[in-house]
Amino acid sequence: MSLATIQCCAPIAREPLSEGDAAELATLLKAVADPVRLRLLSMIGSHTGGEACVCDLTDAFELTAPTISHHLKVLRTAGLIDGERRGTWVYYRIVPETVNKLGALFAPLAEPATV
Amino acid sequence: MSLATIQCCAPIAREPLSEGDAAELATLLKAVADPVRLRLLSMIGSHTGGEACVCDLTDAFELTAPTISHHLKVLRTAGLIDGERRGTWVYYRIVPETVNKLGALFAPLAEPATV
Repeated sequence: MSLATIQCCAPIAREPLSEGDAAELATLLKAVADPVRLRLLSMIGSHTGGEACVCDLTDAFELTAPTISHHLKVLRTAGLIDGERRGTWVYYRIVPETVNKLGALFAPLAEPATV
Repeated sequence: MSLATIQCCAPIAREPLSEGDAAELATLLKAVADPVRLRLLSMIGSHTGGEACVCDLTDAFELTAPTISHHLKVLRTAGLIDGERRGTWVYYRIVPETVNKLGALFAPLAEPATV
């Protein structure tokens, strides 16, 4: 097997993660490692204007409002979404900086290192 | 707030995930949402030649060999690493295609859409 075939260019395969970084990233990954939360995140991000309130999200799920709220709270606590109250509703939007931390870990680098 | 400031260009924020995709990705994310498994993944990927055996990995952890083996099995079952027995040891290497699935979800696109 040649070196080229086993090379993986995602940063996670470039150097060992420190204990601290691994703990922080694991917490973030646990927050997204749920089908409902992944769908909520994608629905918020792709909603008109990049934000959505609970009223925009509940119809897609056969879940109670408190359950949806719980999942939104997990995403918010992890820093993946932020919320702003306007009138009756809290409007959520994605925090790109936090999502990008996961992207930076797993995405292949734009310019693979030369072997 | 302008549209530009709330725009996030990671694919997860581009369109709602289907239930099936969300379930598959959540399973994959659960496999990496652990500090020991993240460190193992990064240690395997960055090891000389892109592969490592348990003998290369155990010294970095204050964990028993069976515990390390359990975590390696979770990564392998998820398709994030593959293993090949040669002599006494099983040698593990990263499966880039699986890691790239996570990268494709969270990484900003190379060319952000023009607003």
